[in-house]
Amino acid sequence: MREQLTRETTANVYLVLFSLSVLLNIFLLCQHFSFHSPSRPSSTISELSWTRRAAAEAEAVAAISCSGHGRAYVDGVLDNWRPTCECNTCYIGSDCSVLLSNCSADVDSGDPLFLEPYWMQHAAKGAVVLSGWHRMSYSTTDHFKSLELENHIRLLHAAVGNAITDGKYLVFGTGSTQLINALVYALSPENTSSPASVVATVPYYPMYKEQTELFNGRDYEWEGATAKWRNSNKTNFIEFVTSPNNPDCLLCDSVLGGSSVIYDHAYYWPHFTAIPEPADGDVMIFTVSKLSGHAGSRFGWAFIKDENVYNKVSNYLQYNSMGASRDTQSRIFNYVKLILAEIGSNADIFEFGFNKLRKRWQRLQALVNSSSRFSLQQLSPQYCTYFKKIRDPSPAYAWLKCENEEDADCAEVLMKGGIISRGGTKFGSSTQYTRLSLLKTDDNFEMLLQKFKPLVASSDENTSEISSF
Amino acid sequence: MREQLTRETTANVYLVLFSLSVLLNIFLLCQHFSFHSPSRPSSTISELSWTRRAAAEAEAVAAISCSGHGRAYVDGVLDNWRPTCECNTCYIGSDCSVLLSNCSADVDSGDPLFLEPYWMQHAAKGAVVLSGWHRMSYSTTDHFKSLELENHIRLLHAAVGNAITDGKYLVFGTGSTQLINALVYALSPENTSSPASVVATVPYYPMYKEQTELFNGRDYEWEGATAKWRNSNKTNFIEFVTSPNNPDCLLCDSVLGGSSVIYDHAYYWPHFTAIPEPADGDVMIFTVSKLSGHAGSRFGWAFIKDENVYNKVSNYLQYNSMGASRDTQSRIFNYVKLILAEIGSNADIFEFGFNKLRKRWQRLQALVNSSSRFSLQQLSPQYCTYFKKIRDPSPAYAWLKCENEEDADCAEVLMKGGIISRGGTKFGSSTQYTRLSLLKTDDNFEMLLQKFKPLVASSDENTSEISSF
Repeated sequence: MREQLTRETTANVYLVLFSLSVLLNIFLLCQHFSFHSPSRPSSTISELSWTRRAAAEAEAVAAISCSGHGRAYVDGVLDNWRPTCECNTCYIGSDCSVLLSNCSADVDSGDPLFLEPYWMQHAAKGAVVLSGWHRMSYSTTDHFKSLELENHIRLLHAAVGNAITDGKYLVFGTGSTQLINALVYALSPENTSSPASVVATVPYYPMYKEQTELFNGRDYEWEGATAKWRNSNKTNFIEFVTSPNNPDCLLCDSVLGGSSVIYDHAYYWPHFTAIPEPADGDVMIFTVSKLSGHAGSRFGWAFIKDENVYNKVSNYLQYNSMGASRDTQSRIFNYVKLILAEIGSNADIFEFGFNKLRKRWQRLQALVNSSSRFSLQQLSPQYCTYFKKIRDPSPAYAWLKCENEEDADCAEVLMKGGIISRGGTKFGSSTQYTRLSLLKTDDNFEMLLQKFKPLVASSDENTSEISSF
Repeated sequence: MREQLTRETTANVYLVLFSLSVLLNIFLLCQHFSFHSPSRPSSTISELSWTRRAAAEAEAVAAISCSGHGRAYVDGVLDNWRPTCECNTCYIGSDCSVLLSNCSADVDSGDPLFLEPYWMQHAAKGAVVLSGWHRMSYSTTDHFKSLELENHIRLLHAAVGNAITDGKYLVFGTGSTQLINALVYALSPENTSSPASVVATVPYYPMYKEQTELFNGRDYEWEGATAKWRNSNKTNFIEFVTSPNNPDCLLCDSVLGGSSVIYDHAYYWPHFTAIPEPADGDVMIFTVSKLSGHAGSRFGWAFIKDENVYNKVSNYLQYNSMGASRDTQSRIFNYVKLILAEIGSNADIFEFGFNKLRKRWQRLQALVNSSSRFSLQQLSPQYCTYFKKIRDPSPAYAWLKCENEEDADCAEVLMKGGIISRGGTKFGSSTQYTRLSLLKTDDNFEMLLQKFKPLVASSDENTSEISSF
């Protein structure tokens, strides 16, 4: 009897163990089929092959911690074969965690890192993968230009409403920088004893003067400020009109009203200004640096109405560099597509940029207005056809004026206070002015405010109303 | 008794079932841990996140079939949102499967697609992934230049033994194209009444003349062939020396022996020529187009001994384009690293390029030598310090001469025969010569031979010994 009971217990024990084991089988089988399900995102091992190494490397480098005050890149300076962190203003250390105590806020350049967080937030959409054989040829889909990138740029301008492009030719440049001299060359007479006079209205972007003088072509000559030529009988002008203007961000137009006007609309995007109407010049320059923030890519474009001018520019670009890098065109194509697709969504880059720069302007304004030592350019709220509302200013630069006589050299005043700015004489203006870039990282902007506070506080007539910002 | 047996059998059955279930669990657990093992390639789903979309897209586009006579790219012309195939010479159709019956072989440009198969064979090593926030800034690790790329370029020259770079400054250009005028500018006197005379020895690369004349700077002037100036008292020359020369691929040196010589060493790599010794000029240009085949990337570099010249070139590059695209620098960094790592291995790119071009030259030579209608430049086997042996010629171009009086315009003769070449007058030479590019795809080269055969066969003095090739 006892034996019968033992055998029955044994059988029951095995049954229980078997049942438990079967449950584990079922669980593990579910896991197994789940990993290999066709409905899983198309990035299982079985579907990614030659891109794996590079993708893994990119993610590993992106994951290197730089304490939120820097970032590492795949081609960064190597330390033990590992790219090192590249730190924001005033941060140092292998992980950018140390804030230098006595460090200047460098707001000299228009480096558009204010858009970096946008791309970090949209990492998946912003990634670009290029094969080893990607576009090896000199030729791409429209000679040296990507046809689809051309198409999408036109679509973007139409969607944003900031430029009329129909009936105009399109050229690509290695930055709008390259297009500046290309256009001066193309608009100049050939083999002439009377070179074209290249002019701009003060304050102007220094590049126009510096570049024209450096290249020193026989058919053009830098002739300074438009004010000098207002009542002149001269006709052969090439006038640069930057709108919004760099450095003071005002919307403006041609002063001399001549036939050769180069409209530089680098900043004519909703990040920086209201869009009252689409620009419609015969020659209009734009740059990706100020659209998406990819200044390092070196990519710009221009719309040109006149066919002869277009042919001359194309010729120049062919002989200067055989066009803009096809790698860069591929990368920028991805970004233009994305920006276009996200218009009006909660991932709208213009919304992102506008909000960030508006807050920066408000905080800086509050600080500057708390004393009469300094003043800023006057910018008013304006109706914007893109946002379909009256919107506050969100300029790229502060055009700061030192109001006191003893602050004759404004850039020098700021330099002594630990702020590196770009002095007014560079823009053809006076030393009473200096330009502060509002385009850089959050760390950089915070450092600017931190350094500015004592300068404002040390003014004789300050109101001590430096509100918390 | 029977009941005892039944109970025992039942227990045994449960034991067997339990054992089988345990074995299944062990198997499934091994599978599970194998997928998540740290030693597995770092590309499991749990390890790839933001790069997945772009990686999958790149692989999908690379997998589009173009019948082996073309390829699709991620930024190709879209048809139903799918990039279309871009076909090789004379192939058409949505999958490049149709060979046009009456189509010219276009061997005009030096488009280096002969290296495309190399990069397709090394797909994993050649892939590059760029994040959306990759190098947005104007500045990179050495102002506008990637420090690691600079380092690796120097290492590569040392490893190949084709240039002495110690004690020389390094600049990057948007193609060597950009560096040509930058160097002419930098070597010219400033604000002079006696502009520098820019010269080259016939036959010369057309770009030197065309670019110098287009930019038309006040401090330099194109003054033609060196032969004109051999016995001149003039001293202010800027002489271009291309070695190996484009178009005839001969190794050569300065003719005028002046102080300002620009050595264009675009082709001074083992693909194209023996390396008898490292080049050691004070100014030396190289281009990635002819190193790795990435002509579309627009990237070149130059070594410069004199600090003043270097500063002037850097200044020019800043004002022309603010340096070369940082995207491109990142991509090329990957390729230079790879090429360096594979030196001497069975993935040596120079071995690959040399073998391909050598075979092409032999086949073309056999065809040309089968009649006296045409002749080619004389190239001999030569000792190469890279391959450490005497090696056959493997030139980039055929510098074809039409020997018969009635074939006065050689390019025209070939054009009528269905070959588009680059006529000798472009190189400052006579119409008796024309240049054939041997650098393009296999399809292109086969088409060249196919079109050339009848031209040779139609010669009066052919020997009918057109060997099978």
